[in-house]
Amino acid sequence: MDYSMKPIGTIHSPFQDKKSTPIQPSRSQAIGQVEVFPEYVEGLQDLDGFSNIILLYVFHCSEGYSLRVKPFLDDQLHGLFATRYPCRPNPIGLSVVRLVSMNGNVLEIEGVDVLDGTPLLDIKPYVPEFDFKDGARTGWLQKGE
Amino acid sequence: MDYSMKPIGTIHSPFQDKKSTPIQPSRSQAIGQVEVFPEYVEGLQDLDGFSNIILLYVFHCSEGYSLRVKPFLDDQLHGLFATRYPCRPNPIGLSVVRLVSMNGNVLEIEGVDVLDGTPLLDIKPYVPEFDFKDGARTGWLQKGE
Repeated sequence: MDYSMKPIGTIHSPFQDKKSTPIQPSRSQAIGQVEVFPEYVEGLQDLDGFSNIILLYVFHCSEGYSLRVKPFLDDQLHGLFATRYPCRPNPIGLSVVRLVSMNGNVLEIEGVDVLDGTPLLDIKPYVPEFDFKDGARTGWLQKGE
Repeated sequence: MDYSMKPIGTIHSPFQDKKSTPIQPSRSQAIGQVEVFPEYVEGLQDLDGFSNIILLYVFHCSEGYSLRVKPFLDDQLHGLFATRYPCRPNPIGLSVVRLVSMNGNVLEIEGVDVLDGTPLLDIKPYVPEFDFKDGARTGWLQKGE
């Protein structure tokens, strides 16, 4: 069974093409705006109590996928699901960003790492108790340390 | 524009109904299995180097949504996007779980908090550098502290 997902907004960023887009939000201090479509604005109540939010969005410029990829941070092939590579069977992206301010249906965010015009699927509050794991091993990403 | 998402596997858990399902993985030590459909198994290579993984899945038992909800952890109404409530415009769930072992197309995971039979959309490696934010404020969730 397939599931149909419909954007609830648009992420605006300074990045117009893939080459200039940072690899991950931790490597970006870029400011962007999340424009939530007006019909969903009521759902934003109390979100500004959270310093960080999780954005789920569509990697809308990715097409097709390979199950083994060379990620941006390595020159070896790895299984796609062991990477954050954007071309995936379900091209859903995830970024944890800082919520700078909220004004009506527009969120100002810091640490944006997506292309301008990215379709937004969901916003969730970032909660360390749920989302933080201490002492995590990070496989091939640790090699260079 | 709508986006069609197609499950890449199934999450198996001890939880057969919503009432017995833990609220978040941090509150669960339950063991579950992620069964990745055989055609995607090549994409799992090197995933076992990561101690924690992010699962994206469909809240398949949720129907419809309200933009203001009383979450499980509070008795006040909050904006839906300031909660992790399962009934959402795009009912995509996110859990960070511990990867105990990997055997072919089956991942044994600890800290599962989803219903048995949950459709899996994506697996990503959990990388603290990308996913951890220090000193995060957590709005209404902090009230009780």
